[in-house]
Amino acid sequence: MQHAGMRRIGVMTTGGDCAGLNAAIRAVVRRAVGHHGLEVIGIHQGTMGLLEDPPRAEPLTLAMADAGLLRAGGTILGSVNRGTPFSFPLPDGGVTDLSAKIHAGVAKLGLDAIIGIGGDGSMRIMHRLMQTGHFPFVGIPKTIDNDLGATEYAIGHHTAVEVAMEALDRLQPTAASHNRIMVLEVMGRDAGHIALAAGIAGGADVILIPEIPWRMAPVAAAIRALRERGRNFALVVVAEAVRTAEGETVFAGPSAPGAMPRLGGVGARIANALEKATGAEARVTVLGHVQRGGSPGALDRIVASSMGVHAVDLAVAGRFGRIVVWAEGRVGDAPVDQAAGAARPVDPEGDMVRVARGLGICLGDR
Amino acid sequence: MQHAGMRRIGVMTTGGDCAGLNAAIRAVVRRAVGHHGLEVIGIHQGTMGLLEDPPRAEPLTLAMADAGLLRAGGTILGSVNRGTPFSFPLPDGGVTDLSAKIHAGVAKLGLDAIIGIGGDGSMRIMHRLMQTGHFPFVGIPKTIDNDLGATEYAIGHHTAVEVAMEALDRLQPTAASHNRIMVLEVMGRDAGHIALAAGIAGGADVILIPEIPWRMAPVAAAIRALRERGRNFALVVVAEAVRTAEGETVFAGPSAPGAMPRLGGVGARIANALEKATGAEARVTVLGHVQRGGSPGALDRIVASSMGVHAVDLAVAGRFGRIVVWAEGRVGDAPVDQAAGAARPVDPEGDMVRVARGLGICLGDR
Amino acid sequence: MQHAGMRRIGVMTTGGDCAGLNAAIRAVVRRAVGHHGLEVIGIHQGTMGLLEDPPRAEPLTLAMADAGLLRAGGTILGSVNRGTPFSFPLPDGGVTDLSAKIHAGVAKLGLDAIIGIGGDGSMRIMHRLMQTGHFPFVGIPKTIDNDLGATEYAIGHHTAVEVAMEALDRLQPTAASHNRIMVLEVMGRDAGHIALAAGIAGGADVILIPEIPWRMAPVAAAIRALRERGRNFALVVVAEAVRTAEGETVFAGPSAPGAMPRLGGVGARIANALEKATGAEARVTVLGHVQRGGSPGALDRIVASSMGVHAVDLAVAGRFGRIVVWAEGRVGDAPVDQAAGAARPVDPEGDMVRVARGLGICLGDR
Amino acid sequence: MQHAGMRRIGVMTTGGDCAGLNAAIRAVVRRAVGHHGLEVIGIHQGTMGLLEDPPRAEPLTLAMADAGLLRAGGTILGSVNRGTPFSFPLPDGGVTDLSAKIHAGVAKLGLDAIIGIGGDGSMRIMHRLMQTGHFPFVGIPKTIDNDLGATEYAIGHHTAVEVAMEALDRLQPTAASHNRIMVLEVMGRDAGHIALAAGIAGGADVILIPEIPWRMAPVAAAIRALRERGRNFALVVVAEAVRTAEGETVFAGPSAPGAMPRLGGVGARIANALEKATGAEARVTVLGHVQRGGSPGALDRIVASSMGVHAVDLAVAGRFGRIVVWAEGRVGDAPVDQAAGAARPVDPEGDMVRVARGLGICLGDR
Repeated sequence: MQHAGMRRIGVMTTGGDCAGLNAAIRAVVRRAVGHHGLEVIGIHQGTMGLLEDPPRAEPLTLAMADAGLLRAGGTILGSVNRGTPFSFPLPDGGVTDLSAKIHAGVAKLGLDAIIGIGGDGSMRIMHRLMQTGHFPFVGIPKTIDNDLGATEYAIGHHTAVEVAMEALDRLQPTAASHNRIMVLEVMGRDAGHIALAAGIAGGADVILIPEIPWRMAPVAAAIRALRERGRNFALVVVAEAVRTAEGETVFAGPSAPGAMPRLGGVGARIANALEKATGAEARVTVLGHVQRGGSPGALDRIVASSMGVHAVDLAVAGRFGRIVVWAEGRVGDAPVDQAAGAARPVDPEGDMVRVARGLGICLGDR
Repeated sequence: MQHAGMRRIGVMTTGGDCAGLNAAIRAVVRRAVGHHGLEVIGIHQGTMGLLEDPPRAEPLTLAMADAGLLRAGGTILGSVNRGTPFSFPLPDGGVTDLSAKIHAGVAKLGLDAIIGIGGDGSMRIMHRLMQTGHFPFVGIPKTIDNDLGATEYAIGHHTAVEVAMEALDRLQPTAASHNRIMVLEVMGRDAGHIALAAGIAGGADVILIPEIPWRMAPVAAAIRALRERGRNFALVVVAEAVRTAEGETVFAGPSAPGAMPRLGGVGARIANALEKATGAEARVTVLGHVQRGGSPGALDRIVASSMGVHAVDLAVAGRFGRIVVWAEGRVGDAPVDQAAGAARPVDPEGDMVRVARGLGICLGDR
Repeated sequence: MQHAGMRRIGVMTTGGDCAGLNAAIRAVVRRAVGHHGLEVIGIHQGTMGLLEDPPRAEPLTLAMADAGLLRAGGTILGSVNRGTPFSFPLPDGGVTDLSAKIHAGVAKLGLDAIIGIGGDGSMRIMHRLMQTGHFPFVGIPKTIDNDLGATEYAIGHHTAVEVAMEALDRLQPTAASHNRIMVLEVMGRDAGHIALAAGIAGGADVILIPEIPWRMAPVAAAIRALRERGRNFALVVVAEAVRTAEGETVFAGPSAPGAMPRLGGVGARIANALEKATGAEARVTVLGHVQRGGSPGALDRIVASSMGVHAVDLAVAGRFGRIVVWAEGRVGDAPVDQAAGAARPVDPEGDMVRVARGLGICLGDR
Repeated sequence: MQHAGMRRIGVMTTGGDCAGLNAAIRAVVRRAVGHHGLEVIGIHQGTMGLLEDPPRAEPLTLAMADAGLLRAGGTILGSVNRGTPFSFPLPDGGVTDLSAKIHAGVAKLGLDAIIGIGGDGSMRIMHRLMQTGHFPFVGIPKTIDNDLGATEYAIGHHTAVEVAMEALDRLQPTAASHNRIMVLEVMGRDAGHIALAAGIAGGADVILIPEIPWRMAPVAAAIRALRERGRNFALVVVAEAVRTAEGETVFAGPSAPGAMPRLGGVGARIANALEKATGAEARVTVLGHVQRGGSPGALDRIVASSMGVHAVDLAVAGRFGRIVVWAEGRVGDAPVDQAAGAARPVDPEGDMVRVARGLGICLGDR
């Protein structure tokens, strides 16, 4: 059932980009324009695009929302990360509230609905914008870290896992040829889902994630055990935000205990430490933004397409303030105030950790 | 809790191969040998290997179950498709019951449990073997068609989808360069899950699946509508078992209505018919077994690893006659008599069909 | 040294598309616009675009010639295959000479040079257009078949080889899992370069190419020999235009001897014949246009970029009637009348055939 | 013509591994065993394997030299990098001459020929071993850096280029989505061939290589010029051994001028400097050994297979002291004393540099 007066939907991407954003944008356009006969306005640079006068935005047509867009990495709408508009940082060190300007931008564009594709922070911001003015929004979750509580699956995660797995596929033969430890540093600012999934998929021997503080002793023991049964190499996956256990002093200086310093890179530092602890040569690869970009994998395309269609249907039904979710292998939705804010780190007693331990992978804690 | 007297587990693969079988075998060995300290015997050529004297089988070691095996396509144990052993076809045209020989083979190998990785038919056969003798089995579901009722997800499906999607990624630019219709024939003997998922992921304009009988009129209309809005090409995905609607006479001769003849290939015949109906040039690609083989994608590796670990834990707990399933994003299990036999075709009113229609994809029925 | 009065260059693609055409177009624009300060006009649909009034053409800018274009398969300019404009077929069965109209189109666009990216036939047509009017052209060779005499390497070939090789990488494990013969049919209308290179790169046991007529006896013997030394499967690559040897009667009906009939597909027919001759199961994959499309590989991008830059420099120097060539690992050029027309089939005594035989690959003749 | 008394050929890999080594080993076995009926002994860990008593070596059979080996990255024979055996470093700080032990190892294995797959240093060592004792060797060149003077092409280079190009394909969309500079650090200890080829193939805006010392001013100017014409991002490829120009002080501390310090990574330091110089955000990816490993691309497989076959034929003909080369698109050979030692850096006036400049890529010098 169509919401009375629904004519024009805005769509924007916010926060860090990832593979599958364009697939979601495409699905929004195909559903809204092609099926419901609405207009879709693409807003550039997230909420920042709404601040400008006139707003930075353009109509998105079916011709633009073709299969080429489905395959393209990144986001054609651009995205900026500037924190919350409610206390936006000023050059003089102060802050200002930009929310009224954002509401004005929505009014200027004449938007009857806004579909925001973003992470947890973006969902909270959009929820508050809805509470404080005309901002009839539906959220689509994206994060390569996959740590949104509301949804089993967020756009971008699986492609990142695939990229990291492919790196392990390439690292294994060269590790074996030279009796080396290969350390792969992957993304994961607050959560280790990428490291855990890619490590399982890529045959890692050791996976270090932020949720499970690590010590060198069990890691070195695991690598020695491999060597004793004839395996001459080891694959180690580390999330960028990995933390050492309380009292662990493997890293000299400011890094122990707790969060490791960014200087020099976590992966490089762990590789160095592993060389000292095991006597084996170690090398490091830092995948960086390769994990965010490029053509999305099949799962991200399917999930993003499903979510885009569903988000439009929610908007058309006037069901605002909801976030699209993926649960039990299908698309659904949930109220954003329930969903946002509930971060979903790796459960140290959860299924994937059990699988990793079941495969004999060392997680650094024992 | 460990089953009293559990010492030796057999593992075999049955039915058509797919990507991820070796990942599951590897997980079984790592869990059973590495964690539980059991022996694992790999049985060659499925139940056929149990018929020989001595049985065709070999111990599988941790060294064999390394990360190389995780990445490898196919199955190191081999697999044959010979129908049910309860009425096995003889050269003279008669049938014989081989089940006693299979039970004898299990006894000769001294197996306390058997993990069978197979499709629906294999699950039914193993269930009956368990009912008629010593065959303490746990099943792991695999099928590229993903039409097993018990599980949201079976090993091998997603890699097939990825392969078909990549073909569409390559077909689109050449289609656009030459104003052509590209027909991609994919696997799917009884179910259209591959065609539907790959078509959504690969940007198909038309998807024809066995569950939705098709007619030429709506397909040709959809392609003409694309042309009218300026799109000069079309991507068409057809499952090999696609059926025309009652009364449809687009194919001369024995093909109409009902199941299409294999001679010449479904894809080629549909391409020909589309040329006649639309006036555009059409070309066909038949992916064939490329969909079954090769290194598994990340999802298949993760699911297969999870299932292998869980299957061993079920066996060790003495919970036989169960099939491992993937539901709600995690591994679980179900009794095989509930699970096997319940085929899961594409639901013509289900989620994925709704997504496809939501994206404006023509499914051939309207 | 710049040709006096050079201001505007046209660029077009002719004949069958392939990966790397856009990379060449991009290089032309970057060199001509970015370095020489010229205008570049993209002509649509090859010489057909010049026949329309006004001609179908558009200025190509640096912004269009960005890295996205480098990665894109196909050709943004489109391409048609309609035979020679000097005797263009009419609906009534007669022919007409369109060359004057083409010259008029060049004049209307005010082109001082034309860069034509095409195959052998296109080069001959453009040469004749130059001899019969104002058509100051430089040619860039493309053909997935790589059978142009003038150049070691033509745009598009290597990507096709990579695609076919990846198919073999996927076919091998499933072949081994099921004791099967896998037949891969690849493109190659007049030459077997794709089949030969992909077969060597993909580990084929048998490669059948048009240049070496084949008989079933040596092929079946080679497959039996594999089986005798314990190998249970075989990979067979066949070029679409493969021919049987004189007197060979393996195919009943019109197919023996000489060129094989297209009905049913060469690959499917050979698979059938192999089943009968060896008793093994055989399956077929027909890659079709997957070989033409998609993002070009590194070699095609490098060669296409090099050729595009060089073509512009030739045009700017007024050196018309030349074709860019790749020889001895670098870009160069040759007069088109020497270059065009000299087809370069696989040399049955040449290097690549020696490599194939050196690896023990059966080529069907002995 | 076969060398009298040739019965047993040893094969080994030396120096850093790369993709394609196994393809070459496989070709050696297939040619020597399958065609010439010889024995092939695989020597483990390069010349180190010859020092042990008994030598670390095993017969390589046709069954081992199957298509799986063709596709596998790394080297099944292993490889160590320990410098020259003529002055091998001792734990006490002294050196010793191990060459007599190597000659003894060759005698113990009864080798009539040795095929050594290695880089420039390995070729020199093997040449000297031939001059000082029984070491009848034929060399096959491999180096991902592709800086061997003797050959246009060495095994492993092109796969490294492909891996780096794919990283750029993924970095571009995320760069564009966030208005960022993406820095990709690739291998290249002494030569910039990987950076140059991957940068051209991957659409880099800036490529920094050791052969062309760089300054910040032209790089920053190039990035600003992109921005002025509307391009909001930049792709920068840097070889790990890149050097700043004389007098350049962009890096504080020990890094200016000359070779940059390894601490923190060249890529990370350049990213930092670019942020300061341009005001744009920059991110870094360090591919590391991902470039060395994994399944080889088609070109590396074809070249390695060709070289393996040719090396055996040279050995069988008794033509020792020669290195197989790839020149003018085909395999050949040259005397090792001519070939080894002539490093082939990127020619700053050469073809590929001209292509890069022709495409408007900034090389950091102007």
